[in-house]
Amino acid sequence: MKLNCDLGESFGSWQMGLDADVMPHIDMANIACGFHGGDADVIARTLALAKQHGVAIGAHPSYPDLQGFGRRSMALSHSEIVNCMRYQIAALDGMALSAGLTLSYVKPHGALYNDMMAKPAVFTAVLDAVAGFYKPLKLMILATAQQQAFAVQAKAQGVELLFEAFADRRYTDEGTLTPRSENGAVLHGAKLLTQVAQLVKQGAVTTASGQQLALRADTLCVHGDNKAAIAQIQQIRALLK
Amino acid sequence: MKLNCDLGESFGSWQMGLDADVMPHIDMANIACGFHGGDADVIARTLALAKQHGVAIGAHPSYPDLQGFGRRSMALSHSEIVNCMRYQIAALDGMALSAGLTLSYVKPHGALYNDMMAKPAVFTAVLDAVAGFYKPLKLMILATAQQQAFAVQAKAQGVELLFEAFADRRYTDEGTLTPRSENGAVLHGAKLLTQVAQLVKQGAVTTASGQQLALRADTLCVHGDNKAAIAQIQQIRALLK
Amino acid sequence: MKLNCDLGESFGSWQMGLDADVMPHIDMANIACGFHGGDADVIARTLALAKQHGVAIGAHPSYPDLQGFGRRSMALSHSEIVNCMRYQIAALDGMALSAGLTLSYVKPHGALYNDMMAKPAVFTAVLDAVAGFYKPLKLMILATAQQQAFAVQAKAQGVELLFEAFADRRYTDEGTLTPRSENGAVLHGAKLLTQVAQLVKQGAVTTASGQQLALRADTLCVHGDNKAAIAQIQQIRALLK
Amino acid sequence: MKLNCDLGESFGSWQMGLDADVMPHIDMANIACGFHGGDADVIARTLALAKQHGVAIGAHPSYPDLQGFGRRSMALSHSEIVNCMRYQIAALDGMALSAGLTLSYVKPHGALYNDMMAKPAVFTAVLDAVAGFYKPLKLMILATAQQQAFAVQAKAQGVELLFEAFADRRYTDEGTLTPRSENGAVLHGAKLLTQVAQLVKQGAVTTASGQQLALRADTLCVHGDNKAAIAQIQQIRALLK
Repeated sequence: MKLNCDLGESFGSWQMGLDADVMPHIDMANIACGFHGGDADVIARTLALAKQHGVAIGAHPSYPDLQGFGRRSMALSHSEIVNCMRYQIAALDGMALSAGLTLSYVKPHGALYNDMMAKPAVFTAVLDAVAGFYKPLKLMILATAQQQAFAVQAKAQGVELLFEAFADRRYTDEGTLTPRSENGAVLHGAKLLTQVAQLVKQGAVTTASGQQLALRADTLCVHGDNKAAIAQIQQIRALLK
Repeated sequence: MKLNCDLGESFGSWQMGLDADVMPHIDMANIACGFHGGDADVIARTLALAKQHGVAIGAHPSYPDLQGFGRRSMALSHSEIVNCMRYQIAALDGMALSAGLTLSYVKPHGALYNDMMAKPAVFTAVLDAVAGFYKPLKLMILATAQQQAFAVQAKAQGVELLFEAFADRRYTDEGTLTPRSENGAVLHGAKLLTQVAQLVKQGAVTTASGQQLALRADTLCVHGDNKAAIAQIQQIRALLK
Repeated sequence: MKLNCDLGESFGSWQMGLDADVMPHIDMANIACGFHGGDADVIARTLALAKQHGVAIGAHPSYPDLQGFGRRSMALSHSEIVNCMRYQIAALDGMALSAGLTLSYVKPHGALYNDMMAKPAVFTAVLDAVAGFYKPLKLMILATAQQQAFAVQAKAQGVELLFEAFADRRYTDEGTLTPRSENGAVLHGAKLLTQVAQLVKQGAVTTASGQQLALRADTLCVHGDNKAAIAQIQQIRALLK
Repeated sequence: MKLNCDLGESFGSWQMGLDADVMPHIDMANIACGFHGGDADVIARTLALAKQHGVAIGAHPSYPDLQGFGRRSMALSHSEIVNCMRYQIAALDGMALSAGLTLSYVKPHGALYNDMMAKPAVFTAVLDAVAGFYKPLKLMILATAQQQAFAVQAKAQGVELLFEAFADRRYTDEGTLTPRSENGAVLHGAKLLTQVAQLVKQGAVTTASGQQLALRADTLCVHGDNKAAIAQIQQIRALLK
């Protein structure tokens, strides 16, 4: 079970996330590509950090919305999604190669990630963006109760999926994340570690209603926003060992 | 003697240049990378056009200044120039590869081009950006009386230079372009064709003061802004045959 | 019956619309504020042109989407719509005052305009943006079969509405515009002039299904994209006289 | 002696500066206008904070360079500086009026501030931007040994200057700031308070070479970056009382 984390989301003079603190503890770094965060200088620094700690790198492309941090859905056409993702993935790929690293996967960011999970047309466009990239890249999406259907569609296009689960989020019976606005949506401490253990050992989570839901996860999404988050990653890491 | 042209400089809903009209007549397309013009959709369209006509493609990176079309000098640091060029070159490279094309050279745009020719520190940064790219790319610069010195510096970093000359611009004795603000700075018709013939046959131009100046040019820069410019390219093409 | 036209939508080096040609023939100029088109220099030029021809000016604010020309819907929150509109309106207002002009109305652009007509929450936010501006401004929206309901809501907030109709678009029975993708959606020549005459004399249009639909319009939206569009404005102008 | 501070420099999801902590201790807030930091939402929040604490507000316009935080000099023409400043000042002015506040001055940011002090052509453009604004605004610049010449030029255009001094920076004999790269350029603790006292009581500073230099300052520039900076402001405030 790999740990992945969104990184490289600083921009210009603005810092975000404790990238240097979190990098030693993760397996996969989802690196912002400049459209919601990150810029050429931030990308260069983040790649150097990933290289230093031997962390696998993925592109973390977004809708073009710097002010909204890519969290606001935008009505892009199929080809606009394809091209705007290709541009971002390519920018990161070439900078990574120039830093002696190899890009291995793509994880869409924010509203693009949510739209991909909720709207088949967006998932199809995301898939086209990745499938038509000049070299094979895996696509990371949310593990849900429908993950098999996504996998079949991706396989037909020759794309391998990576499924991620959330250590710190309570799941609904449909296998989606309970909205943060609801009570108990975010897990901490023992509850969080229990969910991690259940995901790893049983390939399942206990949903908000108490049901057991099968979820096959390749990777857990963790956060590096602050010191508490990093302590949490270290606990998860200890558990996984 | 190859003909190169700046292309793909439309942005969003704004058109610039007659790309479809000029592409059949040129050898090398300098494609904007999104920082002064071009966006992911424009790049995709321009690459398709270059492929259709078998035109070699180069990256045309710029200072990050969309409103100023990259024509305003910006005080970027060495690493800012390196990273911002790498990002743009990489974005175009990956999109080109995904379209079945291979990027072969880099030609800086506008103020970055001028600064590169005028300020050694900027040229050094531009050279680092290209030399450290993950694969060999040629760098296109202006053919001047000092072209040998540039070539030596580039060779030391393993970068091959392409020198371009301007068919339609009168040269100074120093081998730079006479400013457009001066009388007779821009050549038309017979004068233009005479300069082209002189460049091709004698490797020289006649400067504004009437001197003969040796210039070794690998390529001529032509323009595709309007119908008259395209007619001019066709005349040059006819002469070269 | 006033004629209004979207103007000032050039950006940097990119031209859009024949602003100088259309300005003499219109009553109201909807001036882009920099978020979908226009920039500080374009705004200054457009204001000078409006002043020269004695044309009333309105702010034409947009979602923040330069590449998409404000035509892609974006999921902005209530306060994000309010603030982003206020910023744009204020920028134009202060530049207009500095040029000796007085801003008199606001017409949202593109996807923001469409969302305002289709989504009550967006209309409420747009209304808040205008109602809370430091001085009274009218708000221009589409004249539809529901225009009375919009007027009541606006009046409750102290905002006066201006209703615009389209000379060149066939209406549906619901009083919305027939999508451009449908046959006969765009009117030309005699049909267009017939619709204008009907709007002016009878306060009505004949819908695509042949029904007579009452529409109270304060202004007609015309276009200045090309020479043909400007000829059309002159025909409408002649008819109105 | 008023205390002024740069504020409202967060952008989107990125925080910068402890605005809420510093606002109670200052007299004048220089509010970023969106071109180097700040956005419409940040401006709205910052204006609310200034209103709550009864702090005077000024516009803090910049070169258009978000990634570079306005710290990189850009070669803008006279009219580009005028228009880009007017746009930013106007945006803040209208939002301020809508929040029940009155803008009273302008302080250019970063590279624009430095260029204004170093290049007469830039100062002239900055002055034109302010002088031609639709209502009188003061212009804040650096108090130097040449401050009288600046004041004369400004007065000829009807603009009143505000001179600011730096509490925490060692001055050169020319009355400019010793570059941060030099030893002892930044003052702390007792040295800082000594300089403040000297500025207030004697209208002078002791330069790096030990000379007494007359400087007439209307306001001291303070910083709100972190807790230590805020403690420093409180010490200065105590001294001034």
